[in-house]
Amino acid sequence: MLKKSLLLSLVLFLVSSPVYAAPTTESLQLSVDLVWVMVAAFLVFFMHAGFAMVESGFTRAKNSLNILMKNFLTISLAAILFFVVGYGLMFGTSFGTFIGIDGFLLSGVDDIGFFVFQAMFVATSATIVSGAVAERMKLGSYILIVIAMTSVIYPVVGHWIWQGDGWLTSLGFSDFAGSTVVHLTGAVGALTVVLFLGPRLGKYSGKKVNVIPGHNIPLGALGVFILWLGWFGFNGGSTLAADPSLVPMVIGTTLLSTSAALVSSAAYTKFRFKRVDASLSLNGVLAGLVGITAGAAEISLAGSILVGLVSGVVLVEGIRFLDTKLRIDDPVGAITVHGICGVWGTLAVGLFSTSTGLFYGNGFSQLGIQLIGVLAVITWTMLAVGAFTFVISRFSSIRVSEEEEMAGLDFAEHGSNAYELKETLFTDENMPLENGLGLADRLNNLSVGRTEKKSS
Amino acid sequence: MLKKSLLLSLVLFLVSSPVYAAPTTESLQLSVDLVWVMVAAFLVFFMHAGFAMVESGFTRAKNSLNILMKNFLTISLAAILFFVVGYGLMFGTSFGTFIGIDGFLLSGVDDIGFFVFQAMFVATSATIVSGAVAERMKLGSYILIVIAMTSVIYPVVGHWIWQGDGWLTSLGFSDFAGSTVVHLTGAVGALTVVLFLGPRLGKYSGKKVNVIPGHNIPLGALGVFILWLGWFGFNGGSTLAADPSLVPMVIGTTLLSTSAALVSSAAYTKFRFKRVDASLSLNGVLAGLVGITAGAAEISLAGSILVGLVSGVVLVEGIRFLDTKLRIDDPVGAITVHGICGVWGTLAVGLFSTSTGLFYGNGFSQLGIQLIGVLAVITWTMLAVGAFTFVISRFSSIRVSEEEEMAGLDFAEHGSNAYELKETLFTDENMPLENGLGLADRLNNLSVGRTEKKSS
Amino acid sequence: MLKKSLLLSLVLFLVSSPVYAAPTTESLQLSVDLVWVMVAAFLVFFMHAGFAMVESGFTRAKNSLNILMKNFLTISLAAILFFVVGYGLMFGTSFGTFIGIDGFLLSGVDDIGFFVFQAMFVATSATIVSGAVAERMKLGSYILIVIAMTSVIYPVVGHWIWQGDGWLTSLGFSDFAGSTVVHLTGAVGALTVVLFLGPRLGKYSGKKVNVIPGHNIPLGALGVFILWLGWFGFNGGSTLAADPSLVPMVIGTTLLSTSAALVSSAAYTKFRFKRVDASLSLNGVLAGLVGITAGAAEISLAGSILVGLVSGVVLVEGIRFLDTKLRIDDPVGAITVHGICGVWGTLAVGLFSTSTGLFYGNGFSQLGIQLIGVLAVITWTMLAVGAFTFVISRFSSIRVSEEEEMAGLDFAEHGSNAYELKETLFTDENMPLENGLGLADRLNNLSVGRTEKKSS
Repeated sequence: MLKKSLLLSLVLFLVSSPVYAAPTTESLQLSVDLVWVMVAAFLVFFMHAGFAMVESGFTRAKNSLNILMKNFLTISLAAILFFVVGYGLMFGTSFGTFIGIDGFLLSGVDDIGFFVFQAMFVATSATIVSGAVAERMKLGSYILIVIAMTSVIYPVVGHWIWQGDGWLTSLGFSDFAGSTVVHLTGAVGALTVVLFLGPRLGKYSGKKVNVIPGHNIPLGALGVFILWLGWFGFNGGSTLAADPSLVPMVIGTTLLSTSAALVSSAAYTKFRFKRVDASLSLNGVLAGLVGITAGAAEISLAGSILVGLVSGVVLVEGIRFLDTKLRIDDPVGAITVHGICGVWGTLAVGLFSTSTGLFYGNGFSQLGIQLIGVLAVITWTMLAVGAFTFVISRFSSIRVSEEEEMAGLDFAEHGSNAYELKETLFTDENMPLENGLGLADRLNNLSVGRTEKKSS
Repeated sequence: MLKKSLLLSLVLFLVSSPVYAAPTTESLQLSVDLVWVMVAAFLVFFMHAGFAMVESGFTRAKNSLNILMKNFLTISLAAILFFVVGYGLMFGTSFGTFIGIDGFLLSGVDDIGFFVFQAMFVATSATIVSGAVAERMKLGSYILIVIAMTSVIYPVVGHWIWQGDGWLTSLGFSDFAGSTVVHLTGAVGALTVVLFLGPRLGKYSGKKVNVIPGHNIPLGALGVFILWLGWFGFNGGSTLAADPSLVPMVIGTTLLSTSAALVSSAAYTKFRFKRVDASLSLNGVLAGLVGITAGAAEISLAGSILVGLVSGVVLVEGIRFLDTKLRIDDPVGAITVHGICGVWGTLAVGLFSTSTGLFYGNGFSQLGIQLIGVLAVITWTMLAVGAFTFVISRFSSIRVSEEEEMAGLDFAEHGSNAYELKETLFTDENMPLENGLGLADRLNNLSVGRTEKKSS
Repeated sequence: MLKKSLLLSLVLFLVSSPVYAAPTTESLQLSVDLVWVMVAAFLVFFMHAGFAMVESGFTRAKNSLNILMKNFLTISLAAILFFVVGYGLMFGTSFGTFIGIDGFLLSGVDDIGFFVFQAMFVATSATIVSGAVAERMKLGSYILIVIAMTSVIYPVVGHWIWQGDGWLTSLGFSDFAGSTVVHLTGAVGALTVVLFLGPRLGKYSGKKVNVIPGHNIPLGALGVFILWLGWFGFNGGSTLAADPSLVPMVIGTTLLSTSAALVSSAAYTKFRFKRVDASLSLNGVLAGLVGITAGAAEISLAGSILVGLVSGVVLVEGIRFLDTKLRIDDPVGAITVHGICGVWGTLAVGLFSTSTGLFYGNGFSQLGIQLIGVLAVITWTMLAVGAFTFVISRFSSIRVSEEEEMAGLDFAEHGSNAYELKETLFTDENMPLENGLGLADRLNNLSVGRTEKKSS
């Protein structure tokens, strides 16, 4: 960054530099599309803050550090692994319409901006798992799942649907921004791992289904707002260009579908449970986002409201069904949000697409193709994640011990607590931390001998 | 999103697609303006996260869920209703310079990006009410107010001032980004409803004025930062174009006014109360933002510092005056921030505008017009909101019962708590939730019989 | 903001307005570069929210308000002072390659957007101090340091390196986005003040080094995510243009370096302390960001991963070294993150730059120049900050009293608490606030006589 004191001189400088040798309409198009896709990539990146806050806030305080670390590790490992291998498998030259076979380490790849944008997506898919397995899965085992998801499992799905030669693309499968590619893949991965893991201690006791409330809903609500914001980039950036006729429609459908889903989930919980349930309504927002993701570019504004209204109700019943009928313990509702609503969003294209949808007089053909895609992705992801999880679970348990689960994963895995409110604001209480030596204590010991806490 | 492996091929693809048939300077102008306005719209959207955090953090923990739900419902209902009816009333063909009469459901409207940007604004105006009525207003009644504000009351004001044929526009009234349109309208609506509601229990006891402190100032401070960030889009996007000579000035005045207001409110509280008060200083930030909103495009950088310095002091005295003299209970200071500072910002144009302001030798004419606009908007909003609130309060109380208010609206309206810190970090304490069955319990009962909490 | 009902008419309007008289490729280049730099400026602004959350979350609850106020005051004072004097000293006509001598109050400066972007940077440098001096420095003394840093000390460094005529620029020193200019300058300032201040009470007792844990790590983690997001603007915007060949590389290296640093710091703490330490890993993210800041534009993607891997380990050992060997009390690790990793990042250019780096066969010359720059900036900053701090500490202590430190700076400086969780969620406990009259009480008294708290 070298300052030129006037805009004019900046222009002269730029005009005289190689890249801007002379601004042409073609180079300008590249620049404005670049700005759009970069802004979108930043917003999708920020979604990981949203996921971290939602997952932390909607679970118990004793597992917060663990969830935060899982989210940070997911985006970090995903970015590196997608650079090394994932991008090549996803967007490399197609081998039999099934998988890419070059472009590893971005070799021969010029469009680094596209890589950056896509790297944020793969991390999104993987991080869905972290919410569903929260409060009981070992950090090390989770990392292995992330590696498998981001290196191979997600890129294969992406190749089928977003690489021009993929077999689902060729079939006419339509998934604009990833209801299936990103969300369904992540949710099926999550479901598969959860089936191996089992529910949290105390979640199902005999015939009883217990609700384990989150510890910090305002933080979770902030996460939901961040996710909604980020999703404008997720869907909007999937245009890959600052197209003045397409982008506003995508943003408009994303806004209206989500708004409708919040309203419908809030209203439906009021109708069903006599109270507007905050947690379910907040998940309703996410349901509306996932629901419109596949069709954001080809569903009308009015259609997007209908998609969202359905999403909100599907969310509430889906969470109840998984929890009370199937007894699948998904602490933050991730499987329903991303999986069931991911399927709904993908099928909604076959219903509401103004160019191919059933409701616009185009018959069942698109709907059928959408169904094929959904089933194919579910099958692949479940088999691949299942096989991988089976293998790693042979070597050691993927779940923490009962003692560690009760003490909280923050203490077990990180030797520390997420909150220290007591020391300053409260007095005369016992904290779980006092039961053993946390990292703070070990750090002290390591340095200089035994620590006396609270010498101040 | 279909990957083309090289930027070059992307260009070729775009060049060959209908929209980009050949990038012309005109189409490029559309694209770059689009990116700017969309970025601005995202930032304004994010302001709703800021409002939610400010309002939640600056009130008591027992009302947090309720405030969060009110904020989410506001943006959601506003988006849908502005699509259905509000946009038409605001920007449709003018009927007598007073109201628009077409464009409902965006029929005949091409500029969806402009709709998206404006939808974020209407929600901003409506959500101002939620802070002022916090901790005592029924959720259902609040929703009715939001519907009235976003469908009709705000669009009428907007028509007067931002539709080219509105009577205040024709008069020469100047309100660049909405000190009056958005903030004053919202604040007058808030004030009117608060006059119907009355103060919170325990706020005024005899001659005593009690301060009810917020429960989580760090969260509120984050909200203030988010609002400041979002305001760059609020003011900056109101240029509606990526104009290199106008946009930086708007951002610069917004930055400097706000900075000055933070400094002046902090210094003034130090002078007035011997301590730098954090809550008032944080509100000072918002005061500086509202104060420069009307004039951001026509006040100089130095002028914006003066506007901000005044805003910070006006904020502190305004809050004290409303609270201790008028005994109007506004839990987060919204009426002062958006109302009093909204008036100040609107009048500041008549003083500091470099083209029409008194201080630049242009006489009192602009100042007079600004005053007319302010009075007109106050009158309209107070009458319309007052009449509407009067009518709905005939059918049922708009305020929760005393028992519900004491227990907290989270329990009363949502059957749940915002925080569950005790279960994991603390032991041997009683929580309000134990006094009755929350939604968690009801959900459990509904499914499988009586719940035993904390079976883990 | 005046609505034109159609995009077309908007175009016509714009075409007919002075600025857009006819969109030329030159004017469009200005527009698209403007949008990019403004977006980047917003992101850098948002970093201040990140700093505030990190610093607040990683320290004790009783000092939260104080830290928040310090962060808000830093950005505010920095913006105003950089407008008044700093910009001129930094980017004005060079006097002897050492300092600028015109452009005060932006007189004669046309590029307001560049000023805005740079103002966010100066505030970033200054706010680094606030973390290191947390929990014990007087607010008033901190403000004086901020004034000195933003008015003079930082602008001088910036002049040397980022004004085209500065002596370090002329020497060939390379610091793309400010590992040295921003981060090292801030960290050396912080270190110098900390040497005057001394450690917090209870931090070092005899031979023991005590860890004082932060009170709200989830909030701190959110801050880290916000900082990472903001850094995309910090580095990306330092291109000053929407250059399609440069920007994606800068974003890509920033993403990969940071990801690598998170992974390496997490893995290294696991190896070193048998647990993945959350606080150190989160600081690892910041280490990776600082580490790539100088070389983001001239280090390869693979190189950036190496830079990040080293950053993460350097961070962990640096924090331990300062804390346990040098016994320098830096509550949030700011000196290591911004100082030690700032040096590492600056030197890394000499190693990894694809055009001048040692590892690409270019010998030691660039590395030597980088070292000269680092030493010059350390010397200048330490002398200037040291002399200034010495002078102000002659007039009154820059540190709060022991009683105030134990009670918490929130109470001492602001007369209030950051959290009021007890009133609603807990019962029968004593809060520090009860020990004296907070501002709430004083406000009450001032208005109407003695207050009875909790009359509700």
